[in-house]
Amino acid sequence: MTKKELAYIAGFLDGDGCVMLQLIFRHDYPLGYQIRASIVFYQKTMKKDFLLWLKSKLKDGYIRERNDEMSEYTIVGFDRVERILKLLLPFLRLKKPQAKLTLEVIKEIPKKKRGMYTAKLLLKLAKKIDKFKQLNYSKKRKITSVQVEKFLKSRKLLSP
Amino acid sequence: MTKKELAYIAGFLDGDGCVMLQLIFRHDYPLGYQIRASIVFYQKTMKKDFLLWLKSKLKDGYIRERNDEMSEYTIVGFDRVERILKLLLPFLRLKKPQAKLTLEVIKEIPKKKRGMYTAKLLLKLAKKIDKFKQLNYSKKRKITSVQVEKFLKSRKLLSP
Repeated sequence: MTKKELAYIAGFLDGDGCVMLQLIFRHDYPLGYQIRASIVFYQKTMKKDFLLWLKSKLKDGYIRERNDEMSEYTIVGFDRVERILKLLLPFLRLKKPQAKLTLEVIKEIPKKKRGMYTAKLLLKLAKKIDKFKQLNYSKKRKITSVQVEKFLKSRKLLSP
Repeated sequence: MTKKELAYIAGFLDGDGCVMLQLIFRHDYPLGYQIRASIVFYQKTMKKDFLLWLKSKLKDGYIRERNDEMSEYTIVGFDRVERILKLLLPFLRLKKPQAKLTLEVIKEIPKKKRGMYTAKLLLKLAKKIDKFKQLNYSKKRKITSVQVEKFLKSRKLLSP
């Protein structure tokens, strides 16, 4: 990718995209919660070609048509999100804090076994992820480090 | 401005900006209607610094705080809009058709006396401006070439 393409994509992400870290409850996870990193681009389904072009540049992720004439191009996963955010970071402006925080959290997750964090690390990262609520002006975010801590304590997974 | 900055701004405009040609009724205009060209960028008032940065790059235009915690940075006028669109055109993707059509219309307006178009030219350009309704998926656009033509005929300003 050229620097001009990266700058363009960073501008588009700043205008109408989303960088996200979320805590997701998984009943089959020993620690109860999964950390999910994602980048999302939106566009009218009529202009899906644009998302296909983006995907051809960023390589990873998948495009999904919603029911409301909009399509979403989503990249999920620590390694994929890390790779793309590192490319875009120098060009981002508005969403630079989100990108930095995401990279910071991903960096703390063991590289080899991405899902294998300890209860202590999960809680530490969950507290960092809480900051996203402000950064993305999110009103919907329900799961915070409070729930994670309660769960871990209820299962006696956290040393006091 | 560097090419990277232009590419970034084009990406941001494609994501969350607007390129517009409008017909505006002016009771004091001999031909009744004015052609208005504009570029608009939106951002939460909290992040107004970003719009100030944009303005420092694009030089022209003004920033206005709305009542809903949003701010708008608007560039109006044929010469200003023409200059900026020519800079951004090579980098635009989604809004390239709007930019091209705007430049095409501006090109037909006499360079020296920008407001002094003839009734015939106004109607011709109004018909081109009608295409914006589709390009911007605008549901609010009320004034089309139909109104312009009616007005010009009612004033006997158009030769039959």
